[in-house]
Parts: sequence; structure tokens; C-alpha cells
Amino acid sequence: MEDLIDVCLGRVEADLVLECGALLNVFTGEILEDVLVAVKGGRIAYVGRKANLKAAETLKVKGLTVPGFIDAHTHIDLICTPTEQAGWMLAHGTTSIFTEPDELASVLGFRGLKIFVEEVRRLPLRVYVLIPLTTPQNPEVSTLNVMPLKAYREALKWPEVVGLGETVAWPMITSRKKYYMDKFRLALRVGKLIEGHTAGARNTKLAACVCSGVSSCHEAVDGEQALERLRLGLFLMIREGSLRRDLPQILPELLSRRVSLENAALVTDWVDPADLLEHGYMDYVVRRAIEYGVDPVRAIQMVTLNPARHFRLENLIGAVAPGRYADLVVLENLENPKVKLTLLGGRVVARDEIFLGKLREPRYPRYSLKTVRVHGKLRPEDFKLKPPVEGRVKAFVAKLESEAVTRKTLEEVEAVGGDVRLNGLSKIAVIDRHHGSGRIGLGLVRGFAEVGAVASTLNFDENQLVVVGCRNEDMARAANEAVKFGGGIVLVDGGEVLEALPMPVAGVISMVKLKEASEKLKRVNWKLREAGSRLRKPLNFLFFSTFTTLPELRFTDRGILDVKSGRYLNLFPPQT
Amino acid sequence: MEDLIDVCLGRVEADLVLECGALLNVFTGEILEDVLVAVKGGRIAYVGRKANLKAAETLKVKGLTVPGFIDAHTHIDLICTPTEQAGWMLAHGTTSIFTEPDELASVLGFRGLKIFVEEVRRLPLRVYVLIPLTTPQNPEVSTLNVMPLKAYREALKWPEVVGLGETVAWPMITSRKKYYMDKFRLALRVGKLIEGHTAGARNTKLAACVCSGVSSCHEAVDGEQALERLRLGLFLMIREGSLRRDLPQILPELLSRRVSLENAALVTDWVDPADLLEHGYMDYVVRRAIEYGVDPVRAIQMVTLNPARHFRLENLIGAVAPGRYADLVVLENLENPKVKLTLLGGRVVARDEIFLGKLREPRYPRYSLKTVRVHGKLRPEDFKLKPPVEGRVKAFVAKLESEAVTRKTLEEVEAVGGDVRLNGLSKIAVIDRHHGSGRIGLGLVRGFAEVGAVASTLNFDENQLVVVGCRNEDMARAANEAVKFGGGIVLVDGGEVLEALPMPVAGVISMVKLKEASEKLKRVNWKLREAGSRLRKPLNFLFFSTFTTLPELRFTDRGILDVKSGRYLNLFPPQT
Repeated sequence: MEDLIDVCLGRVEADLVLECGALLNVFTGEILEDVLVAVKGGRIAYVGRKANLKAAETLKVKGLTVPGFIDAHTHIDLICTPTEQAGWMLAHGTTSIFTEPDELASVLGFRGLKIFVEEVRRLPLRVYVLIPLTTPQNPEVSTLNVMPLKAYREALKWPEVVGLGETVAWPMITSRKKYYMDKFRLALRVGKLIEGHTAGARNTKLAACVCSGVSSCHEAVDGEQALERLRLGLFLMIREGSLRRDLPQILPELLSRRVSLENAALVTDWVDPADLLEHGYMDYVVRRAIEYGVDPVRAIQMVTLNPARHFRLENLIGAVAPGRYADLVVLENLENPKVKLTLLGGRVVARDEIFLGKLREPRYPRYSLKTVRVHGKLRPEDFKLKPPVEGRVKAFVAKLESEAVTRKTLEEVEAVGGDVRLNGLSKIAVIDRHHGSGRIGLGLVRGFAEVGAVASTLNFDENQLVVVGCRNEDMARAANEAVKFGGGIVLVDGGEVLEALPMPVAGVISMVKLKEASEKLKRVNWKLREAGSRLRKPLNFLFFSTFTTLPELRFTDRGILDVKSGRYLNLFPPQT
Repeated sequence: MEDLIDVCLGRVEADLVLECGALLNVFTGEILEDVLVAVKGGRIAYVGRKANLKAAETLKVKGLTVPGFIDAHTHIDLICTPTEQAGWMLAHGTTSIFTEPDELASVLGFRGLKIFVEEVRRLPLRVYVLIPLTTPQNPEVSTLNVMPLKAYREALKWPEVVGLGETVAWPMITSRKKYYMDKFRLALRVGKLIEGHTAGARNTKLAACVCSGVSSCHEAVDGEQALERLRLGLFLMIREGSLRRDLPQILPELLSRRVSLENAALVTDWVDPADLLEHGYMDYVVRRAIEYGVDPVRAIQMVTLNPARHFRLENLIGAVAPGRYADLVVLENLENPKVKLTLLGGRVVARDEIFLGKLREPRYPRYSLKTVRVHGKLRPEDFKLKPPVEGRVKAFVAKLESEAVTRKTLEEVEAVGGDVRLNGLSKIAVIDRHHGSGRIGLGLVRGFAEVGAVASTLNFDENQLVVVGCRNEDMARAANEAVKFGGGIVLVDGGEVLEALPMPVAGVISMVKLKEASEKLKRVNWKLREAGSRLRKPLNFLFFSTFTTLPELRFTDRGILDVKSGRYLNLFPPQT
């Protein structure tokens, strides 16, 4: 603090003085010309007109200087390492993210959370952490180990922890489940936030969630839901990422009603490697918001000042102002927010969307690399559905409505030789890979792809060994290959491994570069579409297949879960 | 929390359901019709359309329901008791205030702060407290006892303490004085705020203040100063109170530049009893802002959501939303924000600007009632100026430019019989009343009033025994009367006490009702104007006379302080 004061008063040399041709002031919404920004020890000392400052270095920047972008809700503990992703995020102007390692924690519990925090602490990207509430999402329907309350108590003391992660299983709030309430009390007592996820909640139920202390939601999918959340005082996070693109459904409606967007941010909720390479990151989200009619100044406030204020970190991030971290982005201009330069803590870390730094590859402890435990080798017979009789038989089928949503249907299928003739259906198997119990839950899916098998040990937030396919031999092979890698994504057809992305870290993170991961995932998705899938990214269905709070049917190692009732179904119900 | 959830879901009876004809949603800026607000245990459970709620009581309200008003910067430890003032504030729709007991703490130190907090904790008004940095403003020029650092350390733990009070002596920041820096570090370490007071600071000096952690300023007096503060990320508090009325100089400029007012509030910085009775309180400030062109919705946000967010209490106050305190105000309508009803914690506490409650008079400890210590009776001779020679002699004179500002001038006066012939000048005497040392500082003032004497033991933030007058006998009499009362304001002319307001509590607070105090103060001011003063409220000059950070000359028990140089002047400088 004293150093910054001294820089302002010309007593001490600034590390760097930026001479900005134009600077967006996010507080007033003005664009000011010829502004000096003096940096010392990574923080901003002075912002203003020409002044009598001393500087070790001066840098003239054309274009428009704005604060570094913030992603207020995302996930980075999957597919590639957080370290590998960080460089790309910085290249695209993002200097702070708020994230929760749902996958690492679901597989490794508190140790997973610790591994994550230790890695991100070393990154040249500010990673603010939320403690997952998905460990597991719902212990009543999951076989995952439960992260104990004392882990929350300890993690809430860590400096980068700003609160509890998303309340995916929000009906636990309305039903006042101890599983949630105990953790909420802990967080609120120490003044930390609870990040909402209140998909589909409305009226009295949504109000009840707000009563519980939940302070945001990123799950509004249309203008009406968004408006209701804003009205109730929730910080609205509007999502444009790889799993959902809600901007077009939300922004025009809010703009036409002329409601204030002070209390709203733009977030991604996850950008996969392919999208990160193709579109960019928060820079892309800002461009999209502008396309949908948001005033460019407001769009930038929605990824800077607004989220900083929500997380009560406006004294550190989200603005180019004295005392804040010198996290700055230089854009081409306001209409074309292409990132020309990213500075983090006053150092140039990226230029023209290229990360300039070199990051040491993270090392993961041995136990985090040996997490796939199955009960012996999988055999083709393990995937036989074993209908109770031969001939026509009724079975529950999950009809894919989208990558995330399934409908519960009852179909008549043909039982032959202890299995079912698929006729366009696919099988899904969820194999316990955490405890090696040998449990396999089997089910049927309509609308996937006519492919031998695809397996993944990444699936939110259960991360079981999931295999979807049409041939038992291929399913066994895909599963066994995934096990062999210590986790990963494997595509098999006709007995041949067509593609494989090993993800040895907790079975959810690969050590390959983002470009390689992107290529592999694109090829898998492409092949699945070639095999008949109409989904944009069919793999996303696997990722969502075990997500026990999405409608209507989900799959676990104990079988088919009817989400609404919370009950397990027999694949072949009593035949009438 | 659980109770509120249960109310939303109809499992538990609400204490009260308000049926609001119209409600202003401060988040979106919308006015919504036919809205239910359900209250339980003083908090809001549900806000929204008709819902299946149970209610012990229902109340239909016409007019426009808005959140209870917040005064983000004021003072209530002077003239009347905080308890007496609270009722009037509630009557005018204010349900939360942020304040610092500068006067009680300057006289009684940490004990004064404790007395204050104990009193306001019992009030039906939410009083959030800042720890004064004015104990004293500047120990280098004050003879007051210094409140020790450990008092700050302890008080920062109290639940109602939100940070440090105004940084009146802000040059201590630019000069990095330990007196300030130690306290700043304490506050920032525990995540508390530092409220700014950066009168006149600009460019690099203002930036230095922001670097130190100061997060607001209520001292902008024109549009340019206001704009600079907003741009630097300071929370701008625009003042309309009894000591300054800055709205007209600030609002039109900001509005014409169309800068965002998200980061701004309307505050009073103190409303005296006369103004409170004549105009009202935050309701009046809102009306004034609307007169000066602020959109009525924004004006209300500036006294509700915006200050709540600044103080990081938006989960408790500043909005009608689930989980918040049920502090509500019903206005006639948006264009005429006259307060029809005030609810605090879901109870009706005022109707048609009349406070309905009954508050127990506060009891103050004996030591707080015996604070005026002078060295024996004051005699007329004590006020003799004792010029070094007889005849024409040069003397420093404080020329009143306003109630708060003086100019340093050197005048030739006539020395006769060991004193000075006043010829329109007034004498000012500052008598040490804290330690009974017998110290008296004497000076000359031009532009006050031709009156015998007026004395006050209330003066920011020294609270010495100040006497201003034209006749030594009257000055002695006024001083002695004030001492006799244990402090107060006394007007004497021609040997007769014309008016007296005893203020026995620390010499700064009276036990009389607000109406009586108002009448007395009005009469004193009226008589001073009758005696030639051109000031609107001449008493305010006495209140400001010892304020050691206002330009240009101030008075202390050690003599005349030249504020800019920080040096004491001889009333009669070496005659050349």
C-alpha cells in the first residue's frame, strides 16, 4: 500500500507506466483518452492524466484498454490440465476466473480439491475457488464417497476460496436437507457466498432458494427466468459456453424490457478445447453479447466490474483503478473487442491471442493417477440386458431430447438370446469405477448413434465408467481400454479402437496439449455424428448421462434413475 | 433461514403478508403491480405474485412500496440523543444509517464509542457503526487524548462495525503517517471498509488515497470532483444535509455527462433538528435529487440498493427481496415520495411521518455526564488579548467566508488597555475543557456578529469550550454557564443569558426533545443574525471553529492554527 502511495506522489519509481490511447472506465462508462496507468508490484498505483511520475519502463498502447476479463462461473478440471487451459484463457483476455473443481473432488474428495488449489495457486491466472457441493450431487442416489463437513470447514479458510459452489441439487434447499443446510450455515457464518444453480425453479421455490442465502444463478434459459432471478436479487449469470448458449434466449428479452443489467454477468460454465480454439473465450462471449444488442460498454462491465462486485472483490479485480491488480486487456476497439494484449499484474502475458509465457507442467500425486478401479476385466456378457422373457417385452428407454435432457419412455423391444435387439437403440452401461464393486447399471437410449461403443470416465459429477454403444464386444473393449489408460475417452467400432484420449488424472484430465485434445474430441464427435447422431457434440450426452439432477432419466451403477421421483426403475418393468 | 423457506412453501405461517398495490424492484428498476411480500421473524421470505401462503396477518397497502431508506453517511451523536433522533428518522422512511460517533469518541475515547454502540443497539433503527478516525483528527495539533490502536482492534470485531470512519485528515495518507496507516492495516486485514473524506484532493493525491484502501468519499463539492471520484472507483456519496448541500453543484453535471450513478448514493452527513423538523430526512433528499433531474427510480436506488452494496450488506438491507430485513417504506407515489408508512423488521413503526413507537430514554453513565473540566471560573480578564504594545498593531484575523471556511488575514487593530478595540471584529476563545489545564487560545474573527457572547462545548471534533463574542464579561458569563450545565450552548448579551441549551452528555448531547432543541438553536441563530451575522446558521461557525483540517485558520486551546502549514501563529506577529 505504501509503495503505491509513493508511486502516485513521484517518490518511488513505478515498475511500468502504460500510456493508453484510450481507456474504458467501467465505473462511469466513459471512454477516456490519453490516460496513464502506473503499476508497482503488480498493482495499479495511478490512473489519470499526465502526472509527474517516475517509471522504470514505459509502454505506449494503441487500441482500447479495459480491465482483464472475468469468467464468473466456469469449470477447468476436465479434459486438459488447468495449467494448459490457463494460457489460452489469458491469450483471450481473461485474467480471473471463478471455478469449482467438481470433477476432481467427486473422484478424489477433499484430496482432489487440494490438488486443484495447489495447481491453480501457481498459475499466472487468478483462480478464485468455490467448494463443490457435488461430492456427490445427491448422496441418496449416488455411490460416490461423501466429502465430509470438516473438509468444507477447512477449505472455507483458504484465501482463494470465495464460497460454496453451485447448488445443483437445489430441491435439497426447499426440502431443507441437512446435506445442504449444514454447509450453507458454515459458509454464511464466515461471510462467504453460496453460488446458485436453480435450474427450473420458480415462484415460491426460487424465493426459498434465495432465503437460504444463494446469491446467484447461471441456469436461466430464457428471458422470463432471467427476469425472475434479477427481480429476486440473484446475481444473474448469462451463459455462453460449450454446454449451453443462453444469450440469444435471454438478452433480447431483457433489453426490450430495458431492465438494469448492473446485477448481471456473462459466463461460460465451461468452454471445451474445440470451442476455445475456434472462438476464443470471454472475448468471444463479449462479442456475442454485442451481437445480441448489448451496449458494448455494458457488455464489458458484465465481464469485469459486475462479477467483481458480486464476489466482493471489486477492490482487487474488475477495474483499472488504484489499488487493483494491474490486469489489463488492450482491445482493437470497442466495436471489435479483439484482444491485442493481455497484462497480468502489470506484465505482458499474451499478444495477439498468443500466450507468451511458459508454464511448468503440473505434477500430480500418484494416487490421483490410479483412480479407475473395476472388478476385473469387462466381458461382452456384462453388457447383456437379460430381459425376463423372450419376444416382445416392455423396457424403459431414455429418449435424447438434447445433449443434456432425456425423456422417459416405455418402448416395446424384442428380447432374443438373453439380450435385446437394438433396432436403432443404444445400450448404456455405468460401471462402478470408484470402488471396484463390480456394479454395472444398464439401460437403453434412443437417439444416440449406431456405433460399436464409446466410453468415458469423465461424466458430471459422478465420473463413473460410462459406455454407450450397440455391440457388447465393442462396449467391453472400450471399457477395458479406458481402464487401461487410468481413465479417458475411447471410441471402438468393429473391434478396433478408432480414437482414444487417455485422461489419467482422476480419470478426468488428460496430460495432452489443448490442440491435441481438441482434435481427438472433434474426431470422436464427428464419427458419432457420422454414425447417425443428430447431436452437435454427442460426447456431451455421455458427460451428462450420470448427472442425477437433469430430466428425466439418468444412469448410475445401480441402474436407471427416475430423477423426478428419485427412484430407481427396473429396465424391464413388471410386464402387463 | 429454515423458517423463511417454510413460509415460501406454505408449510409455516408468515407473521405478515403485505399486499402491495405497487412495488419498486430496485434490482431491475421496474414498478411491479399486485405484489405479495411475506414476512417471518422480521425478514422477508417471499416476494412475488399471488402464492399459496399462510399468514397470521394481512395488510393491504396502497401507494408505492420501496425498501427502507439508507443514509450512508451521517452523524447522530450530537445535540439530541441518538434515541430521540431515531424516531424522526424512521418517521421519514429511513431504516438504516451508517454513522460514526466522532463527538462522543473525541470526548470520551473508547468509552464514548462503547456508550454509543450500547445505545444504538437498542434502537428500532439499524445503526451500522464506523470507528472514528477523529480521536483526534490530528494528534500533532490537538490536545485531546488519543484513542489507542487496541481500541480499534477490539471495536473492529463488533457485529455492527463495518469499518473505519471518515479520513478527515487525508494528507496523513499521502504522507503515510503511522497514525492512519496502522489503523488502515487493521481494518483491511479483517475485510472492513475505510470510509473516505478526501476534501479537495485531486489527481495523484486522490489516487494515493484510493491506493490506501479508502473506498468512498462524501466531500465532492462540484461535478468535476464528483466525476474524478467516480472514475477512480470511489463510491460517491452526494451530500444534502445541514452543513452542506452539494446536490445542485453535482447532479446536473453528472446527468449531463450521462455517467453511471450505480456507484453513488445520496447522504446527509448530518441533519440538524431544525432541518429534520422542517424538511424531513432521506425522503427530502430523494425529493431534492428528483428536482435536480435524477430519475426517481435511480434516486431511490441511491438511498437503498447502492449504499447496501457499497457496505456489502445487500443480502440484508436495501432491497425488498427474500432473506432481507423486512424494512419497507410506502410512498404516496414515485413522483411525490412522501412517506405514508414505515415498516421495520415487518412492524409498522411510523405512519404519515409520525413515529408510532415509544422509546425508553437512554441512561448515560455518570462519567459521561461530568466531562467539562476547566481550571476554575472564567473571568473577564481571561479574554483580554494582551497586545504587545498600545496603539496600532497588526493581528491575524480569521475572515469568515462561510460557516465552515475562514481566510487568514492580517489586520491593523487598535490596542487599548491591554486589549483590542473590536470595531466589528469578534473574539474567539478556545478553553481546554478536557483536562482542566487552564489553557486558553485566543483569536480574532471578522464577520461573525455583534453580540455579547455565545459559547458551545460542541465543536467538531475537538469539543472544547469555544466562546465567540464582543464583551469580555459576557464571554466569561457564557463560558461559566456552559460549564455549569456540564456543557451546552449558551447565548449571553448585556450580562443576561438569552438562551441556553444544556448538553450534559459529554458536553455534546442534550436530553431535551428534538422540537425543543430545534427551537432553542433556531432562536440562537436568529439572534446572531439579528446581531449582524450574514451566515444562515451562525452557530455552525462555532461547530467548525476547532476543525483542524478546514481552511485556513482554526482555533485550539493552544492558539491559532494555520491549517496549511500545520503551525501555530502568534495572534500578534512580530510587528514590522
